[in-house]
Amino acid sequence: MTQRVADSSARLAGVRLAGELLADLASATADPPGITRAAFGEGEHYAHARLGAAVVALGAERRVDAFGNLYLTLPGRQRQLPALLIGSHADSVPHGGNFDGAAGVAGGIAVMANLVAQGARLPRDLTVLITRAEEAAWFPLAYPGSLAALGRLPPEALEALRSDTGRSLADHMAQAGFDPEPVRRGIVQIAPRDIAAFIELHIEQGPRLVAAGAPIGIVTGIAGGLRYTAARCVGRYAHSGAEPRFARHDAVLGFNDFVTALEREWDAIEQRGGEATITFGRVESDPAQHGGSRVLGDLGFTLDLRSIDAAILTGLERRIGEICADIAARRGVSFELGPIFHWNAAAMDAGLMAGLSRAAASCGLAAPPIPSGAGHDAAAFAEAGVPTAMVFVRNRNGSHNPDEAMEMEDLAAAIALLTAFVIAFDG
Amino acid sequence: MTQRVADSSARLAGVRLAGELLADLASATADPPGITRAAFGEGEHYAHARLGAAVVALGAERRVDAFGNLYLTLPGRQRQLPALLIGSHADSVPHGGNFDGAAGVAGGIAVMANLVAQGARLPRDLTVLITRAEEAAWFPLAYPGSLAALGRLPPEALEALRSDTGRSLADHMAQAGFDPEPVRRGIVQIAPRDIAAFIELHIEQGPRLVAAGAPIGIVTGIAGGLRYTAARCVGRYAHSGAEPRFARHDAVLGFNDFVTALEREWDAIEQRGGEATITFGRVESDPAQHGGSRVLGDLGFTLDLRSIDAAILTGLERRIGEICADIAARRGVSFELGPIFHWNAAAMDAGLMAGLSRAAASCGLAAPPIPSGAGHDAAAFAEAGVPTAMVFVRNRNGSHNPDEAMEMEDLAAAIALLTAFVIAFDG
Repeated sequence: MTQRVADSSARLAGVRLAGELLADLASATADPPGITRAAFGEGEHYAHARLGAAVVALGAERRVDAFGNLYLTLPGRQRQLPALLIGSHADSVPHGGNFDGAAGVAGGIAVMANLVAQGARLPRDLTVLITRAEEAAWFPLAYPGSLAALGRLPPEALEALRSDTGRSLADHMAQAGFDPEPVRRGIVQIAPRDIAAFIELHIEQGPRLVAAGAPIGIVTGIAGGLRYTAARCVGRYAHSGAEPRFARHDAVLGFNDFVTALEREWDAIEQRGGEATITFGRVESDPAQHGGSRVLGDLGFTLDLRSIDAAILTGLERRIGEICADIAARRGVSFELGPIFHWNAAAMDAGLMAGLSRAAASCGLAAPPIPSGAGHDAAAFAEAGVPTAMVFVRNRNGSHNPDEAMEMEDLAAAIALLTAFVIAFDG
Repeated sequence: MTQRVADSSARLAGVRLAGELLADLASATADPPGITRAAFGEGEHYAHARLGAAVVALGAERRVDAFGNLYLTLPGRQRQLPALLIGSHADSVPHGGNFDGAAGVAGGIAVMANLVAQGARLPRDLTVLITRAEEAAWFPLAYPGSLAALGRLPPEALEALRSDTGRSLADHMAQAGFDPEPVRRGIVQIAPRDIAAFIELHIEQGPRLVAAGAPIGIVTGIAGGLRYTAARCVGRYAHSGAEPRFARHDAVLGFNDFVTALEREWDAIEQRGGEATITFGRVESDPAQHGGSRVLGDLGFTLDLRSIDAAILTGLERRIGEICADIAARRGVSFELGPIFHWNAAAMDAGLMAGLSRAAASCGLAAPPIPSGAGHDAAAFAEAGVPTAMVFVRNRNGSHNPDEAMEMEDLAAAIALLTAFVIAFDG
């Protein structure tokens, strides 16, 4: 009985601290509607400082790497063993919600607080990793913080420009007191061989856990994808009244055929039991040319394709070429698809997934398997060969908006799961 | 033989003058690429002054009405008879071509120059009317100059704002030295009973005459239409990776179904032998919200529907309501169609069309019948009960762009036709 009370109070210690930290971040980085923590901006700096101080107060060691990623380590009994890492990012999209990134970091800190409150010392180091610059809304890059930590950030990424300031990543790093040189040279900040497992805790950015009625889920994989960032359907501008149908080269109708054809591909993928998403995130006629009486000669768009199955993506990319040629011949338009940005799918480690499932069962928690369509820091670790897993926390209203709504009760379930997991990790 | 030489030299007088005037306007209102003659702006003022001076030099009377429309009248033998009017506008779209509007005015002046050179005096007055502000690119109004001339401009039109300055039509009138009050009170500047016929000469803005291999055409009617100027398909924004297909309310897919359904309507109209145009002149996601990884929650568009047959337009408007309801139910999106701007079709006068055909035949000119999808000043006169007709001149590359390409030879054919027509008008 005494043991149960102690356990329960210890669990409360972690959840209480996580709640305090998240409330503090929400108020300090408020930017109505929502919060803003720009990558290498004030909000991110505040979060790193505030979260770092909280963990140092728990007795953890603090290290900042060349990129500004923060490692907060509770020493284990055998420090030469590869460490357990729990991590996520502390930046946000502009006017985003408070939980995307930060909930995972606060959850990791809560696990540490639970261990300290229980007086438990793990066999190996437990590190909470707080990465920088995960949100591509700032720099057009996928998780540069994790890549830099692993020495895998391409040097040209340092020249990427921040969307609001127009200044480079290297420039922002230097302004924040970090030397871009070691990152440019690919110096490894944390070696895969020194990591036993990387576990990322993150809010779900979709509605699957809400639909499943489960507070948490165990991620099965992170989708790969490709994106056409500046595609166009090009026809010929004309006067809507004067240009008869036979003479038109209407970019809207050409684009419409393209969307229709891609939706048919999506149907076919699902009929074969595959999974993918196909999304046009921007559709835009030229404001200097469009108008009520114009037949449009140009329509710009983005196309984002994602799947856990690389063969589906390869097949779609090939079909897009055929589809465009077919529409061009029928409609008298042409497609200029522009640059394509590819990223690989990331597999989650089967052993870690099984361990997380066992830990969930031991806590009496339902934690169904769930795919991740969005990219995460975890993908960088998985690609570097680190055994990697992710836990999602249920969240309403999606993410990247001020209305995201995670319940602390659900985060508490994830904290309980991860506490059980790290304790059980070495048997 | 002497008579033929005199005729030929007289015809050359008109064409030569038209050519000089058009060249002068092109150079004085150049605004690369193309020319700009803003409604109630510098370019339009210049054109009115330059063209007016040329016609006064021919011995014509000059009158400016309350709106600033210019009437240049060669007195007839019986001045109490209703006058023959030839007219068009002198403004242009921004960076437009030199011929849209101005070619018709220069052609009318050329007819007058031919009569003067031939020493011919018509039984009735011949007036070249140069209207103002026909191009809706400046004020969101259909031919306010002609409507004001006829006392039919709605008073609220005076509060319409010019697209570049953001200042009202009344304000621009006052700045140009015109008192908006008589226009606001609907004072008639030229009475329909004083007009025997209004003939508008204008470049064709489509490719039908080029396709027919004819230099000129006789317009059969001006299409009516309706325009949704600020329609939207509204879904729900979400993350492209995280939002599974079942949960999406994708505005792009809703809009795509709408375009597809309207194209089917267009097919059905043509299969029934009808004629219409269906045009999406603007398609635009919100720059503050869109992006590569967004499922779009909102897509704005305009829809322009035109037909000479009012029943086709009424049918389409009704079908649009049904189509939107159907898509809304299937896709989980909604349509906000916003304000609808209607304009009536204008019938051309059968007697005038026959007279123009006879005049073309007498000159040995092919002048096939041709519909006008675009609106013109002529529509205002036809709606006011004035016997009205239009002659189109062949023109490549459409209109409302710097590449419009009318050949002076084709304008010469129109000038010959109209010279023959006005001489034959009273038998």
